Amino acid sequence: MEYKLAFVGIGTVGQALLEIIISKQDELIRDYNIQFSVVAITDKILGSVYNPDGLNPKMILDHISAGKNLDEFEGAENGWDALKTIEESNADVLVEVSFTDVTAGEPATTHVRKALECGKHVVTTNKGPLLHAYNELHELATKNNLQIGFEGTVLSGTPVFSLLNSCLQGNEITEIKGILNGTTNYILCEMEKGLDYQTALQQAQDAGYAEAVPDLDVEGKDALAKAIILSNVVMDVKLDISKVPCEGITNITNEEIAEALENGFRFKLVASIKKENNDVTASVGLKKLPLSDPLSGISGPANAVTFVSDLMGEITIVGPGAGKLPTGSALLNDLINIHKATSRSI
Amino acid sequence: MEYKLAFVGIGTVGQALLEIIISKQDELIRDYNIQFSVVAITDKILGSVYNPDGLNPKMILDHISAGKNLDEFEGAENGWDALKTIEESNADVLVEVSFTDVTAGEPATTHVRKALECGKHVVTTNKGPLLHAYNELHELATKNNLQIGFEGTVLSGTPVFSLLNSCLQGNEITEIKGILNGTTNYILCEMEKGLDYQTALQQAQDAGYAEAVPDLDVEGKDALAKAIILSNVVMDVKLDISKVPCEGITNITNEEIAEALENGFRFKLVASIKKENNDVTASVGLKKLPLSDPLSGISGPANAVTFVSDLMGEITIVGPGAGKLPTGSALLNDLINIHKATSRSI
Repeated sequence: MEYKLAFVGIGTVGQALLEIIISKQDELIRDYNIQFSVVAITDKILGSVYNPDGLNPKMILDHISAGKNLDEFEGAENGWDALKTIEESNADVLVEVSFTDVTAGEPATTHVRKALECGKHVVTTNKGPLLHAYNELHELATKNNLQIGFEGTVLSGTPVFSLLNSCLQGNEITEIKGILNGTTNYILCEMEKGLDYQTALQQAQDAGYAEAVPDLDVEGKDALAKAIILSNVVMDVKLDISKVPCEGITNITNEEIAEALENGFRFKLVASIKKENNDVTASVGLKKLPLSDPLSGISGPANAVTFVSDLMGEITIVGPGAGKLPTGSALLNDLINIHKATSRSI
Repeated sequence: MEYKLAFVGIGTVGQALLEIIISKQDELIRDYNIQFSVVAITDKILGSVYNPDGLNPKMILDHISAGKNLDEFEGAENGWDALKTIEESNADVLVEVSFTDVTAGEPATTHVRKALECGKHVVTTNKGPLLHAYNELHELATKNNLQIGFEGTVLSGTPVFSLLNSCLQGNEITEIKGILNGTTNYILCEMEKGLDYQTALQQAQDAGYAEAVPDLDVEGKDALAKAIILSNVVMDVKLDISKVPCEGITNITNEEIAEALENGFRFKLVASIKKENNDVTASVGLKKLPLSDPLSGISGPANAVTFVSDLMGEITIVGPGAGKLPTGSALLNDLINIHKATSRSI
């Protein structure tokens, strides 16, 4: 079975998926009987290219690596913007990996909506649509018998949504607790080793974990966005983000961290979502976890989520929360799941 | 869609699945459009019962709780042994939850083989068939277009096989490292708190984690069996169990544990399977893990596995390694996956 992909955005994550599609070609045919053909790519900065018969992904990557704009790519149509690509290309699946706008969720939400209206499945790592329009998009997909995969929006490729959908089926999730931001976890770990906050932050920036303006991370806003996505998807409730208590790590001191540790506890920035009597509450903040808690052992930039459910008790998954290949792997897993879901007869 | 189940064995795990089927009836119809009907149960000790039109699972559980033999259950045929049940009942799926025989894998292997020959899917928590005849049974199932689910054979309901099959698709697994035995992990944790080996073992026995004859656990044989299953299924290689190095926890001292901890390490009983240049090696033994390793933070009777793969790097899953409901949950997840797989058109 061949799937034609249209990419909106071809930054790090989009390029990672192209690399994976190239390197895993034989295994994908052997193990899943799937082939991917890339028919369109459109990017605000890097230009666009369209060929209904398929582009050569290796040549596209080489073209981008050489610093050239895709509008200069020959043997294909150029100059298509995102909407034209979604509406007029012959793609089966939209790969939405454009820049995330957490505040309004645009233009990614429009892209996803348009794709679903045009009969295209969607895979995305873009938090915007999940934050702002999950219910609407989920209903639209269901109505049109289409799939949306979004594993990479929380914890990059570390399984969260596929874990719930395929591994804990029949379980009712009553609580989710997670370390959803690697930057802050890295800083807290370095502070435990004795670095002060500013030095630890600088080190995180030097290592590429933290942005030059680190506010989204250190104030807990990135973890909050992911907690809202988890509430939307797993708890099926749309929380008002402005009413969810959210604290970052900017006020913690080395002394508090050391004192907690002496008493057998470790401070972690924990996003928590809880369902009690059909009422769902969420928060992001520093929590003193006992050292026996699986989340307290998560070190460096790793992420982790604990799901509490009626049958299984506590299940914790630990893995990377960012990274080129893990995020590309999330998209690949979503694509394979679309294949499995659509090749079902029911 | 209705599935007719035949149980071989109706001990703790079988009864757990019956309880779950009763309590989750509405959700299973709502979320998956599945209904389960129990047509046959046969147990070496508790007797047997068969009704092609379906038995009432609540009445079966009450009957067993009242200490009565199933051969006395009225309104149904009695006296069918496992083979007759598998060959002659109208079940679609065999639930093989009889006693595990690690040494020869029988009679469970015969039960599973027979079911697959008779056109019945299989779900099982029985390690025997997976240890001794995985390849043969897997091929037989594929040939006959049938499914075998065995999530509960390693780490009870904590996702291992479903995690690989549905969440890390397209990843090549190069290494597996796991704490696969809860009893020994509990004892090591108690020894770290200062208890000597004998007292910690006694405490594990009192808490129900360890058997009266604890050799299988403390000598590493239980972890070894699970490592062999992982090699068979994930690495697709049949290792000679007698040639896999296997060490237990009986020789470790409190002093060694304390000294490791002072230096930032913790002793864990680790099962390890590694693929290098198509050569697979495995071992079970005490390993000194740095405290930053997710496995070193696993406390008490919990289990955990780390999968190392080409795209995702390290993914660790932590959860219960035993327990009535988690093991029942594994069977339920397998049953839902059979439904998903068989309702595919390809």
